[in-house]
Amino acid sequence: MPNRPASPVIIVVEPFGGSTRRHNPSLPLVYWDDAAVTRGDGVFETLLLRNGRAANLERHLDRFVASAKLMGLPVPDAQVWRKATAEAVDAWYEDNDGDAKCGWTLTRGREATGIPSAWITVRPVGDEQLRQREKGVKVMTAARGYSIDAALPGVEKVTTGEIGEKTARNPAPWLTVGAKTLNYAANMAALRYARKNGFDDVIYVDEGRVLEGATSTVVIVKKGNRLRTPPPGGDILPGTTQAALFEYAQRHGWRCKEKELGVDDLVTAESVWLVSSVRIAARVTRLNEVKLPAPHNEAEVRQLITAALET
Amino acid sequence: MPNRPASPVIIVVEPFGGSTRRHNPSLPLVYWDDAAVTRGDGVFETLLLRNGRAANLERHLDRFVASAKLMGLPVPDAQVWRKATAEAVDAWYEDNDGDAKCGWTLTRGREATGIPSAWITVRPVGDEQLRQREKGVKVMTAARGYSIDAALPGVEKVTTGEIGEKTARNPAPWLTVGAKTLNYAANMAALRYARKNGFDDVIYVDEGRVLEGATSTVVIVKKGNRLRTPPPGGDILPGTTQAALFEYAQRHGWRCKEKELGVDDLVTAESVWLVSSVRIAARVTRLNEVKLPAPHNEAEVRQLITAALET
Repeated sequence: MPNRPASPVIIVVEPFGGSTRRHNPSLPLVYWDDAAVTRGDGVFETLLLRNGRAANLERHLDRFVASAKLMGLPVPDAQVWRKATAEAVDAWYEDNDGDAKCGWTLTRGREATGIPSAWITVRPVGDEQLRQREKGVKVMTAARGYSIDAALPGVEKVTTGEIGEKTARNPAPWLTVGAKTLNYAANMAALRYARKNGFDDVIYVDEGRVLEGATSTVVIVKKGNRLRTPPPGGDILPGTTQAALFEYAQRHGWRCKEKELGVDDLVTAESVWLVSSVRIAARVTRLNEVKLPAPHNEAEVRQLITAALET
Repeated sequence: MPNRPASPVIIVVEPFGGSTRRHNPSLPLVYWDDAAVTRGDGVFETLLLRNGRAANLERHLDRFVASAKLMGLPVPDAQVWRKATAEAVDAWYEDNDGDAKCGWTLTRGREATGIPSAWITVRPVGDEQLRQREKGVKVMTAARGYSIDAALPGVEKVTTGEIGEKTARNPAPWLTVGAKTLNYAANMAALRYARKNGFDDVIYVDEGRVLEGATSTVVIVKKGNRLRTPPPGGDILPGTTQAALFEYAQRHGWRCKEKELGVDDLVTAESVWLVSSVRIAARVTRLNEVKLPAPHNEAEVRQLITAALET
C-alpha cells in the first residue's frame, strides 16, 4: 500500500463510440461552455469500488440510463460504461487497495460542439464518510422547502417495479424530477446548514412525511426483522443501495416493504439508517433532539447492508 | 469588423486578491472536482455588453453578491469584478463590435483545494436571441411542478426594496431559493419541452398565478402607460432588467407596479414581454393557443426597455 495520497483516476469516455482515454487529474478537464458548468445540465452516479470491483453496478447503470432518458440526453450504452468502469477499476487497483469512490458523469456537452461530455473518476473514500460508517450520524429533519405538485400529469407515487422503471416514470416532461442531475446545490446547502447546527446530515420531510436524506435513502428497522423505506418515485429518488438491500434481505428472511413513513416512525423504530452507495450505511444516532440508542442487532443490520452490496 | 467567428474571451479571476489571467478558450478550464461540475454549486450572472460597456452592471453586481451570500460563498468584491469585467470588455472590443454576452461565474471551487473558482466569459449573442428580439416569442405556460412552501421561516413575498436586498432575504437557510445558482437543468428541460411543442419559451405559473419566464422576467404593458410585473422574491428571481426598466420608465412618465398577475392578465394586456439581460425584450406573440397581436406602441415599448439598459 502506498503512503502518498492516492492520485485520482480520470477516464474520459467518448459517449457514442465508447473509446476512452486517461486524463491527467492535475489538468483541467471541462470546457468553460460545457452544460455541466453553465447549467448543471447533466446526470451522474456515484459507485462504491470494493474488493476490486464496482458494487451494485447494474442498478447504477439502470438509474444512469433512466436519468439520461428523463433529461433527453443520449442514452448511455451499458456495455460502454461497463467496459470503461472496468478500465477505471483496474487502473485504480494498480496503485491502491481497499474501498474507493467512483463517479460517472454525462453532460449535455459543450455549446460549441453539441457533443455530450462523459467521464469516470475514481478517488479515495473521504475520512468523514469512513467515520460515519462506524460512528453513525446526527440528523436534523428539514422541510425540503418545496412540494412536487402531485396533480401534474404523470406525477404519482411509484411503489412497484424495478429501479430503472421507477426512475423513468417522468412526473412531467418539462421537469427533471426523478433524474439524478448535477443540480445538487440545495442538497449541499442543507448539509452546510446541518453542520453549522451541530448535525451531520439531513432527512427531508414534507408535512411530517419522511422523504429521503440529502444524499441517501432512509431505511428503518422494525421489530420482527422488518425493513421499511418510503416509496421511491416522485420526490424521492429511487435508491440503488436500498434496492440492493431489500432484494438481498428479503432472500435472507427479512420482510421488506416500501411504505409511507412519518417522523414518529423514525423515533419508534428499532433503528434508522441512511443508506447510499459509498458511505453504505450510517445509523442515525440522533434525530433532532431525540437520541436514538443503538439497537441490539446493530452489527447484524450493518452486516446485512454491506453483504447486499458485495453479492 | 472581422468575418471569422469571434473567439470567446475568458478571464480567470482570483476570487480573493482579484488578479486576473487570460485563458485560452480552446483549452479546458474547470477541474473534474470543481463543485460547479460535481454539484452545480456556484452562482452566475449574464450581462449584456453594448456600446463598449457592460449594461446594468451595478444591479448584476448586487444580485451576484446577494446570491453568493445566500449560498455561503465568499462575498465577491465589487471592485474586483468591476475591474475584471472592464478588462474582459476591452479584450472583446479589440476584435469585435456590437453586442456581446458576458458571463460571471463563482463556484465553491475544487474539492482538492477548497478555494473558490471564478471566471468571466465574453462571446457573441446567439442568432436565436437576436431573432427573438425582433420577432418575439411564442410562449407556453407550464406549472413549475413544485411550490415553495410559504409557511417556512423567512419565506415571504418581497415587494419592496432594492434588488440586492430582495435577493438577500433568504426564504430558508438550507435552501437556495432566491440565489441565481448554476442549477438550471429544470429551466433547460422546460425550454426543450417548449421547443418540441412548437413554442420558443415558457412562462411558469402556479395555480394560475404568473411567476417568471424560464430565463426572464414577465412584464406586461397595460392601457395608460402602465407596466406590471409579478412581485419578485420567494419563487420569483428578482430581475435586473425589469428593475432597470421600472426605474427608467417611472422617470419617463410610466406608472410601474409590482403586482400579482394571473394568466388572464397576460391575455388582456396591451402587450406581454419577457425581459432579460442579453435578449433584452422579447414580445410574447402567442400564449398557448392565444395569438397576442402587436400593440400600437410596440416600437415605443421596445425602445423604452432598450433605453433603460443604455443609461
